[in-house]
Amino acid sequence: MEIDILKELGPLFDPKSVAHIGATNNTNKWGFSTIASLIQTYKGPIYPVNVHEDQIQGLKAYKKVTDIPGPVDLAVFTIPAERVAAVMEDCVQKGVKSAVIISAGFAEVGPEGKKLQDEVLSIARRGNIRFIGPNCMGYWSASSSLAAFMMPLLVRDGPLAFVSQGGNVGAAVVVAGYERGLGFHRYVSCGCAADIQIEDYIEHFGKDPEVKVILAYIEGLNDGVRFMDVVKKVTPTKPVIILKPGKTEAAAKAIKSHSGAMAGSDEIYDAAFKKMGAIRVEDTEEMLDIAVGFLTQPLPKGRYVAIITPGGSYGVLCAQACEEGGLRVVRLPHETIEELDKIFPPRWSRQNPVDPAGDRNFIAYMIAPLKLLELECVDSLIFMGFGGFTLFSNLLMQQRSQQEEKMKPEQVAQRVEAMRAIVPIIEDVKSPDFKKMQSAVRQLLEMLALFMGIKDLTQVVTLADVVVEARRSGKLRDNVVNDVLELANASAQGGSSGRTRAEIINSFIVGLLTALVDQWIASYKKPVITTTFTEEQVKLVGDHYDYTSGKRAARVLLHLTAYHDFLVKTGKNSRI
Amino acid sequence: MEIDILKELGPLFDPKSVAHIGATNNTNKWGFSTIASLIQTYKGPIYPVNVHEDQIQGLKAYKKVTDIPGPVDLAVFTIPAERVAAVMEDCVQKGVKSAVIISAGFAEVGPEGKKLQDEVLSIARRGNIRFIGPNCMGYWSASSSLAAFMMPLLVRDGPLAFVSQGGNVGAAVVVAGYERGLGFHRYVSCGCAADIQIEDYIEHFGKDPEVKVILAYIEGLNDGVRFMDVVKKVTPTKPVIILKPGKTEAAAKAIKSHSGAMAGSDEIYDAAFKKMGAIRVEDTEEMLDIAVGFLTQPLPKGRYVAIITPGGSYGVLCAQACEEGGLRVVRLPHETIEELDKIFPPRWSRQNPVDPAGDRNFIAYMIAPLKLLELECVDSLIFMGFGGFTLFSNLLMQQRSQQEEKMKPEQVAQRVEAMRAIVPIIEDVKSPDFKKMQSAVRQLLEMLALFMGIKDLTQVVTLADVVVEARRSGKLRDNVVNDVLELANASAQGGSSGRTRAEIINSFIVGLLTALVDQWIASYKKPVITTTFTEEQVKLVGDHYDYTSGKRAARVLLHLTAYHDFLVKTGKNSRI
Repeated sequence: MEIDILKELGPLFDPKSVAHIGATNNTNKWGFSTIASLIQTYKGPIYPVNVHEDQIQGLKAYKKVTDIPGPVDLAVFTIPAERVAAVMEDCVQKGVKSAVIISAGFAEVGPEGKKLQDEVLSIARRGNIRFIGPNCMGYWSASSSLAAFMMPLLVRDGPLAFVSQGGNVGAAVVVAGYERGLGFHRYVSCGCAADIQIEDYIEHFGKDPEVKVILAYIEGLNDGVRFMDVVKKVTPTKPVIILKPGKTEAAAKAIKSHSGAMAGSDEIYDAAFKKMGAIRVEDTEEMLDIAVGFLTQPLPKGRYVAIITPGGSYGVLCAQACEEGGLRVVRLPHETIEELDKIFPPRWSRQNPVDPAGDRNFIAYMIAPLKLLELECVDSLIFMGFGGFTLFSNLLMQQRSQQEEKMKPEQVAQRVEAMRAIVPIIEDVKSPDFKKMQSAVRQLLEMLALFMGIKDLTQVVTLADVVVEARRSGKLRDNVVNDVLELANASAQGGSSGRTRAEIINSFIVGLLTALVDQWIASYKKPVITTTFTEEQVKLVGDHYDYTSGKRAARVLLHLTAYHDFLVKTGKNSRI
Repeated sequence: MEIDILKELGPLFDPKSVAHIGATNNTNKWGFSTIASLIQTYKGPIYPVNVHEDQIQGLKAYKKVTDIPGPVDLAVFTIPAERVAAVMEDCVQKGVKSAVIISAGFAEVGPEGKKLQDEVLSIARRGNIRFIGPNCMGYWSASSSLAAFMMPLLVRDGPLAFVSQGGNVGAAVVVAGYERGLGFHRYVSCGCAADIQIEDYIEHFGKDPEVKVILAYIEGLNDGVRFMDVVKKVTPTKPVIILKPGKTEAAAKAIKSHSGAMAGSDEIYDAAFKKMGAIRVEDTEEMLDIAVGFLTQPLPKGRYVAIITPGGSYGVLCAQACEEGGLRVVRLPHETIEELDKIFPPRWSRQNPVDPAGDRNFIAYMIAPLKLLELECVDSLIFMGFGGFTLFSNLLMQQRSQQEEKMKPEQVAQRVEAMRAIVPIIEDVKSPDFKKMQSAVRQLLEMLALFMGIKDLTQVVTLADVVVEARRSGKLRDNVVNDVLELANASAQGGSSGRTRAEIINSFIVGLLTALVDQWIASYKKPVITTTFTEEQVKLVGDHYDYTSGKRAARVLLHLTAYHDFLVKTGKNSRI
């Protein structure tokens, strides 16, 4: 009889009540921080269980699980290993449905611990209690806002699900994800995985419609064959991204000591992952980079990439990263070069990577992607952003302010009124008039272009069309439109209120570009990977994500391409 | 006759006056932002030269270089390529000593541009004018606070010197360095390098005592043999870190279009760099990571590394990264394991990586490095920080506040007075009494340990010794001591003023750890590489730098080890 894994693990991820065995006010025990994490997150009834304490962090405590008045769906264990079996018996008697055993001192410490673990397992099996652990850090379930975790965890709800055989690495990924703006539907530190296996979690995540991408950190498997059987059923519908160390002797030794697992032959793992269609990554940064790629980009149909760069050397490094990984930097058709000749100065690179060689016409730079994305031979685009634009526009603003001091007040007032008149037309979402909007956007872009010293305005119409399209599809957000109003008001007051005018203009252009990228992705259904040139940690912007280098962008494209190839091979390319 | 390169490039890096040919108020030209960068940074006389404008950004402008009243040491060119030769003639006539030609349209565009370039070169040679460029973005010289650069540049003074054949990549590295807290003595975007060659800059940096580490981004060389001859004289005294793309066809093509250089055979470059003792890196992040490693760490004498980790899985990934690169995760002597048995709970890993397996005794965690660093067989240490300590101590503080509400006011006052009495003893740098200080530090650490729920205080004496040592050598800074006073005052007032008590305690422990790491490095003269577990961009802390992963830490150690091996081979290992 096949188990319905979604139903089977239901009480674990969505318990109606929680007992915490080993909850305590003693700050030197993990039971202290674990009950705190429960109280901070979970809104259902929490029953601390402790023989010695009556009141724990404001909650009434019980001496035994069987003393608890109401039903208990989940039991959290933070008591010493040797006492877990006895309390698990109580749990069976009480009718507890699921458990997480944070306590350590089981299989990972040797044969004696393994014996204890087997005993606990057999009691739990008898009572139909499915459990996480032992020797784990706990878990997070967004659907019940439940963090039964050893430490406070910075986590938000989202489409990722993650099972980790290392609680610390897992927590680091969850927190890094939080800081990037990414959320987790589930995060499980699986520990020794005595009962629920890593592949069980992956199967469960595969069937849960809330989960879009599955992550796993694996040190060793209890049953490799079963793992392969299960995971290969998941990969055709959802990407499974795996970090598996153990390539070296020192790592294998550290794994044995840490999780008690056998690292196994790295070559065998590598071949198995490939066969299953799982995506193997080298570190946690890559894990999150690829995850966000799957969440925000369509799959590329092939390996031909176009690159647009604000600087030649960026393009060189990006082209190298693409080709080293097996992508092809596409050769541009002659007609495309001629088209780009019309919008860029003669010194532009006239090949892929497309480099306007210091041209500062941002309208041309925003139009060029259209010329590339529309090509049949281009599968994806790496768009390397504006580079030093922010610094430059600050300079421009200083200069402009000096010039404006000489402008007549009527001229300033006229421009302010024009901007104010444009805003409600673009803002209107109730009864939008797209023809009128097109003309308003065009007028706005022309003002901006002239301000930036751009004389050739022939491309403004094309750009205005895309901007209106982005507004129509909700990609161009209200805050970008509001920047125009703020700029008008700041100009009227002489730039004294709140943000400086340079800040508002930067914010507007960044917002506009964000909307355009989202619109390109939606229109052409091809990946558009954007990069920045700082080392600052970057976040989700609009519907996509900026990577900090061409190298990281190339790595993401490579994995997306490989997954597309896998889907085609298994006849499942309809996903895209 | 050998040229004294330090003297030869003196007027370029330390000009007494600057003429800017092509300075303008026209915001659509690079002359606009370049003169702005000069004005923002340089304090000597600046003479804008422009036929059409009389006043440029507040400065009097001249029609010709020869119209300038005073002498001119440096000429900055941002005029079109075809006019550079004529004005270079004027410069020769005026007695200008050096130049930077930002203007593009020379060798990089083909034979005609090459002809123009040769013409300019021959005129400059005749007048003994050494020049940077053409087709570059400009340069930065800290000794004269001079940024003759196309864009505003975020840069600070410091011990790095950098020559880059890509102005954009160069600027990105300089700005990323700025954000990390790293400074540059020189940064040159060398462009086509018609006159001064990449190797000339490296030779110059090698002879400048202000420069500690040399960086180079190279697309192709004009004379590979000369380059090797020059660089191999520099590497025995200063590390030379090189980023050289061009491994793939697309990169080679992009290079040809960008800088006009021939990428050359990657294998030949690789072999040549190795022979010269230059350090080749794969990307800009690695470039800065390694640079900061050289700036802040002693060289390891061998490849045996010890690892201390707050979590097993971190240790696994770090051990793997070390061994993959060729480092050896050292096997701990039996006696060391026995010594660590005394300070850690029985569940600790009992091997390298040293993992206390969730023990939260931070005193033991701060003592363990001593036991490892004192070993002859340990060449370096990776110290993986505290992990979730910050989150945890916030929790502790909440709990502690509840308990304190029940404490008698006399007890609180007593503790506050004790802390206040300790501070001046540690603070005293004028007539320090180290015996008294040892006892004060010990008392302070005991209070902290008790507060954290640590019962075994036997290690406090050892830790106090190191802390006093750190104070004696200036590693323990005043701000850390002041945290204690702030904590005492916050406790007296019930924690209401400024930072919360949890923030102050975190700040104190982080500051203490920083001082300890610096002290360990100074005492044992071995690298101690620290890591964090976030993706946040990290900065110089104290005298060292936190990396964001064991992988990055391992990469740094690897390069330091390779450089040490090179020095030993060339008989120059006395540097360390």
